[in-house]
Amino acid sequence: MVEMCSKSFLVDAGEGTQINMQRIAVKQARMDNIFISHLHGDHCFGLIGLISTLGMLGRTRSLTIHAHADLEKLLRPMLDYFCKGMAYEVNFHHIDPYKKEVIYDDRTMTVTSLPLKHRVPCCGFLFAEKQRPPHIIPQMFERYNIPLAMIPAIKDGEDYLTADGQLIPNQRLTRPSSAPISYAYCSDTAYSERLVEWVRGVDCLYHEATYMQEHLAHAKKNMHSTAFEAATIAKKAGVGQLLIGHYSSRIKDEQQLLAEAKQVFENTRLTYEGMVVEM
Amino acid sequence: MVEMCSKSFLVDAGEGTQINMQRIAVKQARMDNIFISHLHGDHCFGLIGLISTLGMLGRTRSLTIHAHADLEKLLRPMLDYFCKGMAYEVNFHHIDPYKKEVIYDDRTMTVTSLPLKHRVPCCGFLFAEKQRPPHIIPQMFERYNIPLAMIPAIKDGEDYLTADGQLIPNQRLTRPSSAPISYAYCSDTAYSERLVEWVRGVDCLYHEATYMQEHLAHAKKNMHSTAFEAATIAKKAGVGQLLIGHYSSRIKDEQQLLAEAKQVFENTRLTYEGMVVEM
Repeated sequence: MVEMCSKSFLVDAGEGTQINMQRIAVKQARMDNIFISHLHGDHCFGLIGLISTLGMLGRTRSLTIHAHADLEKLLRPMLDYFCKGMAYEVNFHHIDPYKKEVIYDDRTMTVTSLPLKHRVPCCGFLFAEKQRPPHIIPQMFERYNIPLAMIPAIKDGEDYLTADGQLIPNQRLTRPSSAPISYAYCSDTAYSERLVEWVRGVDCLYHEATYMQEHLAHAKKNMHSTAFEAATIAKKAGVGQLLIGHYSSRIKDEQQLLAEAKQVFENTRLTYEGMVVEM
Repeated sequence: MVEMCSKSFLVDAGEGTQINMQRIAVKQARMDNIFISHLHGDHCFGLIGLISTLGMLGRTRSLTIHAHADLEKLLRPMLDYFCKGMAYEVNFHHIDPYKKEVIYDDRTMTVTSLPLKHRVPCCGFLFAEKQRPPHIIPQMFERYNIPLAMIPAIKDGEDYLTADGQLIPNQRLTRPSSAPISYAYCSDTAYSERLVEWVRGVDCLYHEATYMQEHLAHAKKNMHSTAFEAATIAKKAGVGQLLIGHYSSRIKDEQQLLAEAKQVFENTRLTYEGMVVEM
């Protein structure tokens, strides 16, 4: 679940998602978009239950599912059967899994698909806030008697010319709003060098780390990554922090994964179910 | 989950079933049959995940799902997509939801469908052990020098004629095996008088009790039962014990349901997730 710009986005929906969402008390009313990275069961079997429960809870706002086109083919007959007469619409937006492109765009933020390397077509997602306009400084408006009608223009970067011909530069009238935040989610994927450019400088990168480097053969065969590889992407891309997850059952102690990643990229954290990360 | 005659049977599979099964450590290897009462999500959304996980765990024995024919239509495309190349077969046995009939039969037990009254076609299930043959008494075999080859005939009820013409009645050579056990599962259903005959004398009856008698109008509208109604069936049918479950979210304290049922049928118990009942 990603919360950004007062909106909630669900990313992947394995079995039990609706139960976990209740547990962490997600405000489902603000969730209008779901992104599915790929069509393996652990990433989408929870959709039908979630959609059906939202219907029973009385949802009326439409919901958009961004996913590979096959998902609609598979899910539509289930929806028609199990969710007949529901008071809200479920729309599907088909993602081209081989194309990096903006798949969601509103006034405040975008979501971009990031083609990954997995056994089936698979996409990561980059959530990026847009730069917000600067804040105006009320005291300066008073001092120079600037009409409030000028606010939009000044937020847009204009300077102000006073009645007596004095030019007040924009920098004296505004202060910059906080830097936009970005988060990239990359699961499931083999090591993919092109990710480095795509996630460069994000505040937070989630990258799967299914295996240790000692299981490299398995990682390659199953098209997953090692903790070392995840950390390498993080380091090369200069991200703020790295979150790792999607541990194999081979891993008896996730601390070993953490240690392996930290040798390459210090600011790494393990993720676990129900974890909340603030940015 | 029903365990009978060293076999396991799953009855209904809501979302998260595979997780609950792991939690209570069900021996999935002995589970070759799944019974689905009706096609509402809380009774079948967990199937796809369970089937898929069994495949990943290396199952090779085929699995039979007994359910309304629509389930195959809905699930087959999912299986073809998500469970390609799995090492075991999933077979569907279509239940006629309007017919009480034996839908499973082996050497030791049967399962019979019990048409219920719900908003969609719905069946309960009666699990019944067959009467096992009597135990032979070894001491009597020694005393009368009875050849071991006679065991099947004597278990079948024959008397024994000794070499000197003495007739030993079967009752002296055998002692009866324990009485067969039976369990009926009835969820979801409105009050249905014909159930009384169908579950007469079962050792254990699970009957849904969604509401209190004070919610009778809701119960009728949604085609569910009250605790009073569940207990009435149990009393009229003279069952050994009654288990109730499937509580509405209107019910703040299930003890009230229990009290209502006990006024009619004393040997009633509340059920909860993960509960184990021995018979």
